[in-house]
Amino acid sequence: MERDCVVVVAGAPIKDTRWLKQTLDSHPNAYRIGVDRGALKLSRLGFHLDEAVGDFDSVSEEEFCLIKQSTHQLTQLPREKDLTDLDEALLHITSNPSLNNKPVYIYGALGSGGGRLDHLLHNISLFSRELFKPLLSRVHLIEKDQEVLVFKPGFHLIKEAPRWQYFGVFTLNSVKQLTIQQAKYTLEPTDTKGFTSWISNEFIPHQDALIQFESGIVFVVLTALT
Amino acid sequence: MERDCVVVVAGAPIKDTRWLKQTLDSHPNAYRIGVDRGALKLSRLGFHLDEAVGDFDSVSEEEFCLIKQSTHQLTQLPREKDLTDLDEALLHITSNPSLNNKPVYIYGALGSGGGRLDHLLHNISLFSRELFKPLLSRVHLIEKDQEVLVFKPGFHLIKEAPRWQYFGVFTLNSVKQLTIQQAKYTLEPTDTKGFTSWISNEFIPHQDALIQFESGIVFVVLTALT
Repeated sequence: MERDCVVVVAGAPIKDTRWLKQTLDSHPNAYRIGVDRGALKLSRLGFHLDEAVGDFDSVSEEEFCLIKQSTHQLTQLPREKDLTDLDEALLHITSNPSLNNKPVYIYGALGSGGGRLDHLLHNISLFSRELFKPLLSRVHLIEKDQEVLVFKPGFHLIKEAPRWQYFGVFTLNSVKQLTIQQAKYTLEPTDTKGFTSWISNEFIPHQDALIQFESGIVFVVLTALT
Repeated sequence: MERDCVVVVAGAPIKDTRWLKQTLDSHPNAYRIGVDRGALKLSRLGFHLDEAVGDFDSVSEEEFCLIKQSTHQLTQLPREKDLTDLDEALLHITSNPSLNNKPVYIYGALGSGGGRLDHLLHNISLFSRELFKPLLSRVHLIEKDQEVLVFKPGFHLIKEAPRWQYFGVFTLNSVKQLTIQQAKYTLEPTDTKGFTSWISNEFIPHQDALIQFESGIVFVVLTALT
């Protein structure tokens, strides 16, 4: 079976399981990776996992058996390590040539269902690392009411959709000549150093927004109407 | 009355109002600023506000009257502006000489009660701006189970307390010679570029941790036992 994308379910709480199930159903040909408690979530929703990665210290013996039964390849990591369980799972993606250039959809990484703030911030900061460069411009961190896209230098369209009320543009490091066009508030070419933000921008109806920059890493946060 | 600190209540949801009331009661001599819906929260809890700042488009006519009755000085901002309501409130602090060098405790800025992710990220990113430099090393963003401290270059003790299970260290921009000492995991002098993290560190019992760096901005996230 040819895989058209990668779906990762990480360990942070996801409030609306029905929404998660529906969303995952819309990617029947995904390569699926469950990370720690995220593997349990995927198993319980009845999905087959291509991989499960984690130290699994937050699941019971019985839950671990369920994960093993649903999973093709399980990687149990030590509890004390330099990278997080999600970091390790993302390295499995970048080192798998068959997943090269496929879009990567990550659920349960932003903790909007009530997760740890340090994990959320780490899960965004990791894209400033050389190690995760191959994921730039194809990674989406998705929750029910928000989505984070992370970009490498170049020209990128941010897709307009009626559900998105706001979008915010953030730089993760030194960025050269960042512009925002085709949006309510535009930005003339600007250089930044470090973590910087332009939030509460809005789409022009039926018009994709456009960001462009020459170096560094930029991410966009989309916020839904509530 | 001599003020010993500044308390800011911003607009993001705060789940546990009883906890907020108790915490604010422990600062009876604070200079109190309510930001937008945060001003309503302070008023409803029976506190007198030195200032209320915001566009107040999220409160009703009646709620706005309640805020005005509890507030010494009210600043109504336009709805469309370059800075957020909280940014403007923080500028009121830095431009008030009588609040110089007082600790600043900000509640309702991290949205752990379910706020907007873009606001949370913006509220952290703003400390990389020259404009807010006077707040570094005296600002605390506080929620019930977590706290963010933001530091300027130098030598800083991170206070150990049994309630803190983990701490994470993050750089907001280019940081030179960052070290972490007196903690479970130490860090040898390290230079970083942009937003970087070392999470899930732990205190040595009854021992404050120590961070030190020569340039740039560093923040620490404390996470409580749950």
